[in-house]
Amino acid sequence: MAAPIRVDERDNVVVALEPVAHKVAARKIEAGEAVLRYGQVIGLAVRTIEEGEAVGEDMLDLPAPPPLESLDLESVAPQPLPPLEGIKFEGYLNADGSAGTRNLLGISTTVQCVAATVEIAARRIREEVLPRFPNVDDVVALTHPYGCGVAIDAPGAEIPVRTLRNLALNPNFGGEVMAVSLGCEKLQPSRLFPLIQGEPWVVRLQDEEYRCFGDMVAAIMRFAEKRLGRLDRRRRTQCPASKLSVGLQCGGSDAFSGVTANPAVGHAADLLVRAGATVYFSEVTEVRDAVHLLVPRCASAEVARALVREMAWYDAYLARGGADRSANPTPGNKRGGLANIVEKALGSVAKSGTAPIMGVAGPGERAAAPGLNFVATPASDFICGTLQLAAGMNVHVFTTGEGTPYGLAMAPVIKVSSRSALKEKWPDLIDVDAGRIATGAAAVEEVGREIFEFVLDAASGRRRPWADQWGLHNRLALFNPAPVT
Amino acid sequence: MAAPIRVDERDNVVVALEPVAHKVAARKIEAGEAVLRYGQVIGLAVRTIEEGEAVGEDMLDLPAPPPLESLDLESVAPQPLPPLEGIKFEGYLNADGSAGTRNLLGISTTVQCVAATVEIAARRIREEVLPRFPNVDDVVALTHPYGCGVAIDAPGAEIPVRTLRNLALNPNFGGEVMAVSLGCEKLQPSRLFPLIQGEPWVVRLQDEEYRCFGDMVAAIMRFAEKRLGRLDRRRRTQCPASKLSVGLQCGGSDAFSGVTANPAVGHAADLLVRAGATVYFSEVTEVRDAVHLLVPRCASAEVARALVREMAWYDAYLARGGADRSANPTPGNKRGGLANIVEKALGSVAKSGTAPIMGVAGPGERAAAPGLNFVATPASDFICGTLQLAAGMNVHVFTTGEGTPYGLAMAPVIKVSSRSALKEKWPDLIDVDAGRIATGAAAVEEVGREIFEFVLDAASGRRRPWADQWGLHNRLALFNPAPVT
Repeated sequence: MAAPIRVDERDNVVVALEPVAHKVAARKIEAGEAVLRYGQVIGLAVRTIEEGEAVGEDMLDLPAPPPLESLDLESVAPQPLPPLEGIKFEGYLNADGSAGTRNLLGISTTVQCVAATVEIAARRIREEVLPRFPNVDDVVALTHPYGCGVAIDAPGAEIPVRTLRNLALNPNFGGEVMAVSLGCEKLQPSRLFPLIQGEPWVVRLQDEEYRCFGDMVAAIMRFAEKRLGRLDRRRRTQCPASKLSVGLQCGGSDAFSGVTANPAVGHAADLLVRAGATVYFSEVTEVRDAVHLLVPRCASAEVARALVREMAWYDAYLARGGADRSANPTPGNKRGGLANIVEKALGSVAKSGTAPIMGVAGPGERAAAPGLNFVATPASDFICGTLQLAAGMNVHVFTTGEGTPYGLAMAPVIKVSSRSALKEKWPDLIDVDAGRIATGAAAVEEVGREIFEFVLDAASGRRRPWADQWGLHNRLALFNPAPVT
Repeated sequence: MAAPIRVDERDNVVVALEPVAHKVAARKIEAGEAVLRYGQVIGLAVRTIEEGEAVGEDMLDLPAPPPLESLDLESVAPQPLPPLEGIKFEGYLNADGSAGTRNLLGISTTVQCVAATVEIAARRIREEVLPRFPNVDDVVALTHPYGCGVAIDAPGAEIPVRTLRNLALNPNFGGEVMAVSLGCEKLQPSRLFPLIQGEPWVVRLQDEEYRCFGDMVAAIMRFAEKRLGRLDRRRRTQCPASKLSVGLQCGGSDAFSGVTANPAVGHAADLLVRAGATVYFSEVTEVRDAVHLLVPRCASAEVARALVREMAWYDAYLARGGADRSANPTPGNKRGGLANIVEKALGSVAKSGTAPIMGVAGPGERAAAPGLNFVATPASDFICGTLQLAAGMNVHVFTTGEGTPYGLAMAPVIKVSSRSALKEKWPDLIDVDAGRIATGAAAVEEVGREIFEFVLDAASGRRRPWADQWGLHNRLALFNPAPVT
């Protein structure tokens, strides 16, 4: 039996490995005393906790979140990490300077009304047209439930609109934009893509030239074929790591996530940042309680202010809906040994490694700064994944404790387990086992290096994560904080 | 050229038929004077409007909505419509007394995390298992973006939860419930379906018995096969019209919708109500401005109070999000000749016919009262359709002016055009042309009777609407007014 894990020497709780992940008191904790994990207060004991006793949610008072107004935003100047030179991958170079890790045709849609038609067309393209273009990996229909029946001018409506725009500009689509519109919808093509010029790129189903359903499907197929021809001529070439855009996320966290999978991903993030890549972590409700640890890592006061602005926006969004960040943890998180959102957050931000935070993007915005970024998103796995794709993500790293069969059509997803038992149970869903860190079989740096190599391999098409082997492709999930009508 | 259409003798605007639908002043209207259509004020003229001049949105001040607090809710006593005896259809009788118009296997999901897995399993069931059960029409995966990463205890969260519950109980699924759960999600199976007993009905992917992805898919297929066997033994039998549950909706309305398609549907609604069916209209933002016309039709003060309660809830929901009902009309509505939400609403409620309103259901609730019901939903086509399915809908009637290739997997959708030009343009998408009313080629009652007969035929499987012939099956779209986390 492996020794319990203490993360920080100040901690008075440790994580026992057996029989299941469990947080226990390392010494007697008096009623009212602070309970410390990661060297941080995760709660105040509501009663005396004996040494060795399991520490659950009901034994802790949830502390108030760090007050945003008292953070020192002005005097930050973290040191950059030493560069790692010469790291490359095999990608598809795009005209705008980005690079794809896949060669996909994306079919955008302005409105949900066209979704079923586009899905029928995409199926036919896949079956009848794609086989003639063997260098194209797949066709992705960007269908969604937005575009009409929504308050498109209400506060927050810019989020789903820019998300849909930036999804179409994801580097894995190679700059080949086409869209299907109905015609009478609120989200008109010119509003979705104000800057797109050139050859016709919109099939508008209500146009007079389409005289039956077959005409509509044929037009979508015709537009697609033209783009498939161009995409098919592309080949992978050596690209510098600066063209990687790697999104980090966790889903179904447990008490090990913060000491195995997330720190390993944090080490991979450091390597990627040092190699020149753009890397981002997200999930506002899972960083909110660690914001005081992140502000000092911001590269400038401007970045720190942007980080705090996103926290404040989300606080207000939740309050408006009658909720707060305590709505985040799930039954599985708690079963897995996480007492509350503070403990979950402290483990979650380990994914961000140690690099300075160079930029902050709002939900649906592109991550523009090379290096580590915070991309503000909800923690919902699918909304976070969708917003990271909009940010420009071309490789996704996803850690899980409880286990989830997650996958995306637009980018490879590398799944990292926090426990070896999960990798043993799901050998054909989990790509990397970080549970070896808990048992002492591997160091954080070792698993981190493995994830880093997997990112380069997946980006180069040399190695397919399990989700791709099964075709596990979850649908996009938009974040629309504005009302529907 | 047909004469312009005046709906009510008090009206000072009429709808011209040529060259496109256009609302014009029937006489000179002074600045500040009320502009009347359907005998109701649709706005105040912001300047003098000359006789024959087209009346657009910018020429009208939007009036305040009818104040809810001053409506007389207590003294209502509308007369019931005379019954129509002996109307029957051929349906699948269910144990709970309801009847299906289709014989479908529904696979419920508690959480978005299982969606991609369930879709892979559903595809395999359709290809490998369903051919052995020829009396079952199809397999429907009830996938959605809810269940975790959401504030599940926030105000309004009961709406998506009960929607998912009631979708699974739709009569077209024959009472055969099965669900796929991940395990660690917030929306646990016992919370989604507190009342389901009997044989195992949940496949929980995180259970120890599933040791790889193939195990998960095989388990879903095994659960499905058992239910397909029972569904396959069912046959259509004669059912009274009281087992019909018909949802009415409009999407992409134009100036004709309120004088052709919607009144024809209203006449069909009256026939269905007289035959004993449950019929419902919806779309809160499209009835809000006509609520003063609907309250006197409520069968009791209790029903009237429920109707007003739903209006007030939506007013508050929109206000909280920084919007109001004026966010509803689309560019297409305006191009189609609808000046504002008041005019749109007055045309929209024509679908409700003339029967007393017997009941009101909140979003996601089942419609329980035989006769005409108001089922509160947003006007968004897909959210409304999803909520009407949750209300128990087994036939859907959908009117459209601009045209939309709408369809649902769970129930037949009969599409009715407001203009003949649309039916001519899309002969293989529009099922019934109500534009003949505008040209004088058919009376409202005639087209209404035709829709009524189509409902009986579609419910009996004798006639397939176009959407089913193409497999145009839009995805479910949940209404979640609570925050995501």
